[in-house]
Amino acid sequence: MTDTPLLLRQDEDGVATLTLNRPQSRNSLSQGMLRTLLETFEALADDASVRVVVLAGAGPAFCAGHDLKELRAAEYGRAYTEALFADCARVMQAIVHLPKPVIARVHGIATAAGCQLVASCDLAVAAEDSRFATPGVNIGLFCSTPMVALSRNVGHKAAMQMLLTGDLIDAPTALRFGLINEIVPAQDLVSATRTLAVKIASKSPLTLAVGKEAFYRQAELPLAEAYAYTAKVMVDNLEARDAREGIDAFLDKRAPVWCGR
Amino acid sequence: MTDTPLLLRQDEDGVATLTLNRPQSRNSLSQGMLRTLLETFEALADDASVRVVVLAGAGPAFCAGHDLKELRAAEYGRAYTEALFADCARVMQAIVHLPKPVIARVHGIATAAGCQLVASCDLAVAAEDSRFATPGVNIGLFCSTPMVALSRNVGHKAAMQMLLTGDLIDAPTALRFGLINEIVPAQDLVSATRTLAVKIASKSPLTLAVGKEAFYRQAELPLAEAYAYTAKVMVDNLEARDAREGIDAFLDKRAPVWCGR
Amino acid sequence: MTDTPLLLRQDEDGVATLTLNRPQSRNSLSQGMLRTLLETFEALADDASVRVVVLAGAGPAFCAGHDLKELRAAEYGRAYTEALFADCARVMQAIVHLPKPVIARVHGIATAAGCQLVASCDLAVAAEDSRFATPGVNIGLFCSTPMVALSRNVGHKAAMQMLLTGDLIDAPTALRFGLINEIVPAQDLVSATRTLAVKIASKSPLTLAVGKEAFYRQAELPLAEAYAYTAKVMVDNLEARDAREGIDAFLDKRAPVWCGR
Repeated sequence: MTDTPLLLRQDEDGVATLTLNRPQSRNSLSQGMLRTLLETFEALADDASVRVVVLAGAGPAFCAGHDLKELRAAEYGRAYTEALFADCARVMQAIVHLPKPVIARVHGIATAAGCQLVASCDLAVAAEDSRFATPGVNIGLFCSTPMVALSRNVGHKAAMQMLLTGDLIDAPTALRFGLINEIVPAQDLVSATRTLAVKIASKSPLTLAVGKEAFYRQAELPLAEAYAYTAKVMVDNLEARDAREGIDAFLDKRAPVWCGR
Repeated sequence: MTDTPLLLRQDEDGVATLTLNRPQSRNSLSQGMLRTLLETFEALADDASVRVVVLAGAGPAFCAGHDLKELRAAEYGRAYTEALFADCARVMQAIVHLPKPVIARVHGIATAAGCQLVASCDLAVAAEDSRFATPGVNIGLFCSTPMVALSRNVGHKAAMQMLLTGDLIDAPTALRFGLINEIVPAQDLVSATRTLAVKIASKSPLTLAVGKEAFYRQAELPLAEAYAYTAKVMVDNLEARDAREGIDAFLDKRAPVWCGR
Repeated sequence: MTDTPLLLRQDEDGVATLTLNRPQSRNSLSQGMLRTLLETFEALADDASVRVVVLAGAGPAFCAGHDLKELRAAEYGRAYTEALFADCARVMQAIVHLPKPVIARVHGIATAAGCQLVASCDLAVAAEDSRFATPGVNIGLFCSTPMVALSRNVGHKAAMQMLLTGDLIDAPTALRFGLINEIVPAQDLVSATRTLAVKIASKSPLTLAVGKEAFYRQAELPLAEAYAYTAKVMVDNLEARDAREGIDAFLDKRAPVWCGR
């Protein structure tokens, strides 16, 4: 069993699909899983063949959060828990800082740090049967790190409802809250996510990288600073060959050919 | 009439229900009412018997905001108005800082500072007939303090619509905007709110206090700081007996027994 | 053709309607158009006869964003692009800082900086046929300045969906996201916007100016600072004649007469 990889990776047409592969524990985020995710995102950042990343789960669920058995087995030692939550925060921020769009492909449950993964991705496509929760309050351990990502996706009342009750919400509620982008029948989940990923992968990778970085950075700035910063991003973006090619192609009514610079 | 308490309090099963009790003035927030609320929230903060607070209104309305008759009678003296709005801001922040969840139980109208109360609570359950407004613009006094809470619940366009028109919105609109969590038939309001409150009161009070404080604090931090802060909150939370009991109970498939530490 | 004004202005009942007037290029924001908008907003700021501004577009579309032909003709010179995006950011912030409410009246498409105009306005009324996009990613030039306004109106997942796909969204989706306030049949767009504008124009202009400025300022402050700031705004607002007149009129059950001080 030790030979089973924790994370599967399949690349096709510029889309790397990462599949959490601990189905027996509903893809819980063991220390090993977090480390593997971190290394994989680091590798993907510099991999020019990958333009879009899809994050999925093997088995009946997307991800059920931290591995509580492992946590108890480690006897809650402070050095262990500090390293664990530091790694977890690093993984979530690695998604945000990855210079490529990341799409969560959700089925079954996405709970606690699993819900945080969904919230941390740039986009999320969910199967009709998917459900979401931040249930830490039920085990005496509030979902304090998951709520960082959650509250940057959904309003305060919605976040507090999930955090204080710990209840599962269904996919339509998650859509209404702003946690996911799209609901599709379970049998269409793979194809619908693939269609979205391939569409985005057809854009200039340079432009995607520039825009994604600028998005999260400007979101934390006051309005005047956000404009000063993004105006400079636009000016710099216009010096790239891909922008000039894109504008030329648009004005000449032809498809652009990106060079990634 | 001076013997009628401004605020009624009823405790049951760890839930303290506070009822604004000036029905003849639609529970308007006189100086006395604000002071009473402030004292009550201070007392509740340290009352270990209370795990969840419900805020409701007596009579036909939840709360119609400030007491304009009192304001005029005081001749708008600056010392008076400064004290009044300082008290009002203190009450709203006392709700946010109370280490226990607060649920607004809304019926009839919740307007101006009454709407601000709803927005300031962690959760809100509303009767079908409830309506919400920030109508200060209609009396030449913009709802500038109410909008602090409002704009932390709903989007800019929704907030501006309420603030610039002063119009009442109905409960479904308030739900769509994110101002409330749930709409129930008027005859079920008390029981539905009670069910929600009792559910939350069954959680570890320590965990609720830790999580609520962390929620509002992380919401004001940049992403990296929010993660650094909440990762520490998680590590500390795991040193509590309630977290270990909760994880044990979950893994052993039994109900947890909280000790509040 | 040089005699055709870039921007039409029509004043009626305290409402100034500005109509972008380059229908042949779907009202694209040429340097001349941006300069004209800037001058017009500066003039409107001090024009006591105007209480509300409506921003509309002539021809088949509201606004298609920057003028790409002009941009290419200028050979993307850095001095030119720096001035262009600085002007664009100034126009958007002029709308936010204008001491009068601005309502976008949208039909057809509102794309790129045209979508940013909608997001920058305080309110937006849209025809059923209107559609919105931030399609810069399709031409290699990410909508980095538009997303400043967009992400202050809609959630992260919704913003990223628009920014990463570049796809058009229809009016109901824009309403769900929070980008617009109201959808009306195309033939009712002018009258519905006018009704909203006239309603707001009936309020005290002083109160509108005080409230709008405070809204955007408090939105960028932490909670405690936001309350300290707005409590002072309320106290100052109460020293205005319009507030006392408004409260008197309300308590005396008569219509207020504003003096604007």
